[in-house]
Amino acid sequence: MTTELTRDKAFFAFSPDVDPVVRVRQGDEVVLQTHDCFSGQLKTPADTLETLDWSITNPATGPVYIEGTKPGDLLRVDLLEVRATGPSVMVAVPDVGALGDVITEMETTILEHTDDAVVYKDRVKVTQKPMVGVIGVAPAEGEVPNSTPGGHGGNMDCTLVTTGASLYFTVGVEGALFGCGDMHAVMGDGEVVICGAETPGIVRMVPQVVDITGLPTPFLENDELVAVIASAETVDEAYKMALYRMHGFLTDVAGMSTNDAAMLMSLTGDLKFCQVVDPLMTVRFEFPKYVLKEFGFEMPR
Amino acid sequence: MTTELTRDKAFFAFSPDVDPVVRVRQGDEVVLQTHDCFSGQLKTPADTLETLDWSITNPATGPVYIEGTKPGDLLRVDLLEVRATGPSVMVAVPDVGALGDVITEMETTILEHTDDAVVYKDRVKVTQKPMVGVIGVAPAEGEVPNSTPGGHGGNMDCTLVTTGASLYFTVGVEGALFGCGDMHAVMGDGEVVICGAETPGIVRMVPQVVDITGLPTPFLENDELVAVIASAETVDEAYKMALYRMHGFLTDVAGMSTNDAAMLMSLTGDLKFCQVVDPLMTVRFEFPKYVLKEFGFEMPR
Repeated sequence: MTTELTRDKAFFAFSPDVDPVVRVRQGDEVVLQTHDCFSGQLKTPADTLETLDWSITNPATGPVYIEGTKPGDLLRVDLLEVRATGPSVMVAVPDVGALGDVITEMETTILEHTDDAVVYKDRVKVTQKPMVGVIGVAPAEGEVPNSTPGGHGGNMDCTLVTTGASLYFTVGVEGALFGCGDMHAVMGDGEVVICGAETPGIVRMVPQVVDITGLPTPFLENDELVAVIASAETVDEAYKMALYRMHGFLTDVAGMSTNDAAMLMSLTGDLKFCQVVDPLMTVRFEFPKYVLKEFGFEMPR
Repeated sequence: MTTELTRDKAFFAFSPDVDPVVRVRQGDEVVLQTHDCFSGQLKTPADTLETLDWSITNPATGPVYIEGTKPGDLLRVDLLEVRATGPSVMVAVPDVGALGDVITEMETTILEHTDDAVVYKDRVKVTQKPMVGVIGVAPAEGEVPNSTPGGHGGNMDCTLVTTGASLYFTVGVEGALFGCGDMHAVMGDGEVVICGAETPGIVRMVPQVVDITGLPTPFLENDELVAVIASAETVDEAYKMALYRMHGFLTDVAGMSTNDAAMLMSLTGDLKFCQVVDPLMTVRFEFPKYVLKEFGFEMPR
């Protein structure tokens, strides 16, 4: 059975207190239409952040109540498809983002989509690599605005969150209260002016509770690699979190020795930036699956 | 004319006060044999850091006096070949590197080389991607130990420093006093336990003074992209330096507008880690050449 949610079913903070808009069963496909991060308010270059209704920025479609999930469960979300439907929008804003103090004039630009690219100012065709910026579950308590990443997921802006990836989250409340949005047709690692090609889109996903003791979340898997994603107030804090969590995964879950895990992280793993412009900074550490396989470990399916 | 330097011609700090071992002409090929970062002292698992002569670690082959270079010149070094000759060595050391406090037992492991891979403990074959860890010129004054990266280059541990890359440095003293070493047969971004596959090797390069006003150095170019490389006490400082320098390059050198440079950095550029384990931390920002071309800019040759 497939459940489809339109993009008007949006929420703006991950929280136990936001009522779910739909209930789905584990293993069933869910199709989520998503808004761009401005809820579609910027349609032409004349639409700038000055006239924006900020209360409806960073929408996520949902929350989706996933039946049979309870606090502490490990939820795997398989992304069957992440498709950008366009058009995309980008903004440059004085004092905003990691380059805000060189930007003096606010600007909005619309990027039309071709089959496989977005077009920047009729000048540069950039191949699409659609990805989901905001994705997660409700935390056990409190509320986290969708602008902010954290242990529950949220605005991680990780370019690996795309078709074929599986995300793992620790369920905070009964039903998980999953949601996602903030798709980018393409974005560079860092997202330095606070946006990629911000686009509406469609996400097809299947949720499933799985049993892997000790998996550090948020965690990501695709055909080639596994990755931990960590967010903190500074990049220096975030990268240390990512390193220790990956080392913990390799030793405690994958069964490698302390030194093998550390040396193979140094030799074959990659520490990478996700974004440096949200209220917390996000990095990831990627580790290749072929190495895990040589140590007799495969992610359970 | 080709000049060849054997790996016993090594120095341990970039400084105006280290005498050059050879003089070469611009445009001539120079072949540098390089030691591994331990000067070949670790030959078996029984050789540990406890018995190491630290005064000869991080050797660079040189210094090479490049005729006709003077302070303020922009020196381009074309890397014709970066070849790892093996075997490689890795170490894990308590309290050293970004994972030092989980490592309790010192360990040395030797990685034999096959044609295109290194072999970790007879268990994991890792495809070689040879790169040079230490590369640079003497600073205008003072001395910088080879363990440390900076504006002169040095221990940047950037995985892009490989066959086909061109590096740009600002000459600090007459003759430039170029050198390189610390090759890795392969290394992950981050270099989290302080080493990759540390190997002896051979670097074939051609030095040439070029005229590009305002290029932020150290700067790197390959077929696909340009990159700025920035080092600072924290990653948070280093990434900001990298962003501003790339933005400065795109506006002042490549002629893009402030907003186009910033938005296209966000859309098509990547902020990446080089290493987080040296006395200063190093990051790079990569920007694709095809975008520069659409703005009518190509790196002069």
